[in-house]
Amino acid sequence: MPDGPPDPGRIWTAALVVIGDEILSGRTHDKNIAQVASWLGVQGIRLAEVRIVPDVEDAIIEAVNALRARNDYLFTTGGIGPTHDDITVDAVARALGVDVEINPRARAILESYYATRGGLNEGRLRMARAPAGSELIENRMSGAPGLKIGNVFLMAGVPHITAGMLHALTGTLEGGLPLLSEQVGCWVAESEVADLLRTAEKNHAGCQIGSYPFFREGRVGANFVVRSTDAGALAACLSDVVAGLEAMGREVTPGGI
Amino acid sequence: MPDGPPDPGRIWTAALVVIGDEILSGRTHDKNIAQVASWLGVQGIRLAEVRIVPDVEDAIIEAVNALRARNDYLFTTGGIGPTHDDITVDAVARALGVDVEINPRARAILESYYATRGGLNEGRLRMARAPAGSELIENRMSGAPGLKIGNVFLMAGVPHITAGMLHALTGTLEGGLPLLSEQVGCWVAESEVADLLRTAEKNHAGCQIGSYPFFREGRVGANFVVRSTDAGALAACLSDVVAGLEAMGREVTPGGI
Repeated sequence: MPDGPPDPGRIWTAALVVIGDEILSGRTHDKNIAQVASWLGVQGIRLAEVRIVPDVEDAIIEAVNALRARNDYLFTTGGIGPTHDDITVDAVARALGVDVEINPRARAILESYYATRGGLNEGRLRMARAPAGSELIENRMSGAPGLKIGNVFLMAGVPHITAGMLHALTGTLEGGLPLLSEQVGCWVAESEVADLLRTAEKNHAGCQIGSYPFFREGRVGANFVVRSTDAGALAACLSDVVAGLEAMGREVTPGGI
Repeated sequence: MPDGPPDPGRIWTAALVVIGDEILSGRTHDKNIAQVASWLGVQGIRLAEVRIVPDVEDAIIEAVNALRARNDYLFTTGGIGPTHDDITVDAVARALGVDVEINPRARAILESYYATRGGLNEGRLRMARAPAGSELIENRMSGAPGLKIGNVFLMAGVPHITAGMLHALTGTLEGGLPLLSEQVGCWVAESEVADLLRTAEKNHAGCQIGSYPFFREGRVGANFVVRSTDAGALAACLSDVVAGLEAMGREVTPGGI
């Protein structure tokens, strides 16, 4: 928590670096971006940028250093397991200019976890390695903890393990006002309502309108999402959008189609 | 096609910039990364990096300029529709230092497409705007074309429209040898085989081994993917991995579990 007076209008941002050849090859469909984004939203933190990089140390270092400097928080997913392609800890340590050490608490957790699973070996001990000065993020699923150092949070790549780590972090990160959003749907071509949307957004400061077209059941429609940290402004902007659609003789579906 | 003698060992790379607040808010699960990655693989082009940026002109410009300079090709998805939040054309034109113009061929396509759909209006005409010097990428789904300028390819955000644009580009981009891959699965903790994998990768130049653990039916397993552009090296490396797993008394499932 900061010492100064709080700024209720401050926007807190985070970035995410997804590490793994398996995403870039198309083998694995990423599931962490959406879950990290949604979780951050609830914490009042905006996901400002995502980069997906291969299992290459220089690529990880470049992304980590670019994004940690210009965001309040930086998260990584992937590359903290026991095998040779898990190089996130080494890359982040180099990015931060600190050594890699065996974290005694992480080692104790792994010793306990593997006591009934064949014991620690060299590969498993790799998961106790951490940039010097790291704190641990609890992993209730599979023993090996995530790591926090400065504003950088290293998490697992396997989505249900990542989910557990996010749960362990819930409520521990300072954020701002959550970004609220409301959606309505309409069977209308978005190209017919471009003016309406532009005007509504311009007339309501602090609101963003997103337009998401679809083609379904043989006809075109779109969902419109209004986002703002100010509930009053959001409601007024949404009301303008709905009134404009109804003035065109269209039926508007609350919550979206 | 290049004038000089071909270099069969050359690795061709591409980057992808995904543009859209809806991905960063967690509202929409991206489907384009995996389909672009898979399509590139077939063209013999490696997806080297992905960035997801918001609907903010400066963010798009930064990503486009960083990635087009260091890759053979740069693809973007999203932000080329008719509404106010579709700013990709303007951002890319600024990144490239060229003007935005109404492309006559794109305009003709849209006039024809909308002839039976209510005609062109201001929003729809936006989709004929292009960075000066662009060529068109056919959109067989919904009229409005994608754009190619230099090594930059602007595509739709709606996945089935993107798929059609990729199809239109198939076979038109020069690439290198496709990256081959083979997968095997095994009911083994990846932490037991870290040494085996590291050694196999080291003994077979040009091969990468990925290890993808899972927890299923109450027990742990992993799939192992060997990738190489050299079929012989790949087969030899895979054979070492399989032999190593079998020497541990494990059954290996070809193709993965």
